[in-house]
Amino acid sequence: MNAPKPAVILIRPQLSENIGTTCRAMLNCGLTELRLVQPRENWLSDKAIAASSGAEELLKQAKLFDSTKDAIADLQRIYATTGRNRFMVKPVVTPKRAAEEMRIHAANGLACGVLFGPERTGLENDDVSLAETVITVPLNPDYCSLNLAQGVLIIAYEWYQAGDPAEPVAMTKGAAPPASKKDLNGFFDHLERELDECGFFRVDEKRPGMMRNIRNMFERADLTLQEVRTLHGMVHELVTYRHRKTETAKE
Amino acid sequence: MNAPKPAVILIRPQLSENIGTTCRAMLNCGLTELRLVQPRENWLSDKAIAASSGAEELLKQAKLFDSTKDAIADLQRIYATTGRNRFMVKPVVTPKRAAEEMRIHAANGLACGVLFGPERTGLENDDVSLAETVITVPLNPDYCSLNLAQGVLIIAYEWYQAGDPAEPVAMTKGAAPPASKKDLNGFFDHLERELDECGFFRVDEKRPGMMRNIRNMFERADLTLQEVRTLHGMVHELVTYRHRKTETAKE
Repeated sequence: MNAPKPAVILIRPQLSENIGTTCRAMLNCGLTELRLVQPRENWLSDKAIAASSGAEELLKQAKLFDSTKDAIADLQRIYATTGRNRFMVKPVVTPKRAAEEMRIHAANGLACGVLFGPERTGLENDDVSLAETVITVPLNPDYCSLNLAQGVLIIAYEWYQAGDPAEPVAMTKGAAPPASKKDLNGFFDHLERELDECGFFRVDEKRPGMMRNIRNMFERADLTLQEVRTLHGMVHELVTYRHRKTETAKE
Repeated sequence: MNAPKPAVILIRPQLSENIGTTCRAMLNCGLTELRLVQPRENWLSDKAIAASSGAEELLKQAKLFDSTKDAIADLQRIYATTGRNRFMVKPVVTPKRAAEEMRIHAANGLACGVLFGPERTGLENDDVSLAETVITVPLNPDYCSLNLAQGVLIIAYEWYQAGDPAEPVAMTKGAAPPASKKDLNGFFDHLERELDECGFFRVDEKRPGMMRNIRNMFERADLTLQEVRTLHGMVHELVTYRHRKTETAKE
């Protein structure tokens, strides 16, 4: 069986050396798919290649993206790694638990990705809101800032340890295929456009936070493709009906 | 209770930078005792201190020894980390199992130490023979050479997890109270009314099934009261805006 393995997605990594050591940690644990969103340095630098210590192939095959949304478009389950509480309404799991979940997702044919933020700051809240689930590594609360590659290693290590899934837990969704992140983001774009037009975002500064809250609700719902279509339809009908009615009245 | 924590013992480490990153990994997991046997470079070099990234105190307190035997003289249980089978008659355990054992030893007042060999070659068999138990990290058999600090991290991480009471899953909802079923049903009524009016339910027989599907999505999202209010607001704004706009146009 060749179940899909989680992709490691580095968002705006600062140092090419850390991309190299990330590749080494990934390959140690059998992970091979690296995605990079706006890396600051050249990930094929001599430093990066030296740091990869033989895992150079992963650097060469790394896929480059302009945005986190693009980087996760074809995936179905996203985990965001954070060191501190973001107070979003989302499950927060340990690496071990996340690894067990990802094994089950893989067995069900769902492609997973794990987001890692820039070295200095970690993930932005907008990136966290793209994930269904947050991973926080239980660490010394007085000193919990992990080096980037160390963070990747722990997730990859737990994934490897979780081994083949003993009993794939079947999701009772019938034959309904899950929505990809692209499908979901398409809906969010549609919704945001309409909410914008109708003046839902009264105060401009509150808009990003409000959109994050809205995203979080729907991310948690673990939607199927059909359900995303239904949501599109609902929004479309809600906004166009009155318009149509008035048009007809005018004729 | 202040049970003794395992000492990390680096045998002939080659690069001072790796001693620094080892300290960072140790402190991340609450380990504080570093012992060095014949380090090749100065473990208080600028490179080492920079690599320790704030865990400098551990570098400064590191104890220096001439031989592995001296370094373990006051300890009672020794684990040797090796990447390959040494064919010695000794138990070989996973990091997780070793961590559980060390927690038990500590509770019984036994001081433990974990040996790590030089970067290039790993532990010599003479050093391995000083240990009761071998730890081998289960890794990709085609690429199992861990960076020194990565190896330390995995042992330290498992040690921390073995004593951490963290729940594998926690929901971070801040102070947000969950929606009651009454709140939720109030929203469904509102939504159904509006969907009805705009003609979303084209075929009457399909209506109950469609409403069930819509309910299911939102039920799964485990909404807070505030989120239900947001949903009310969204639906309200979406349906009234065009109406308002047309009203204004008429005036």
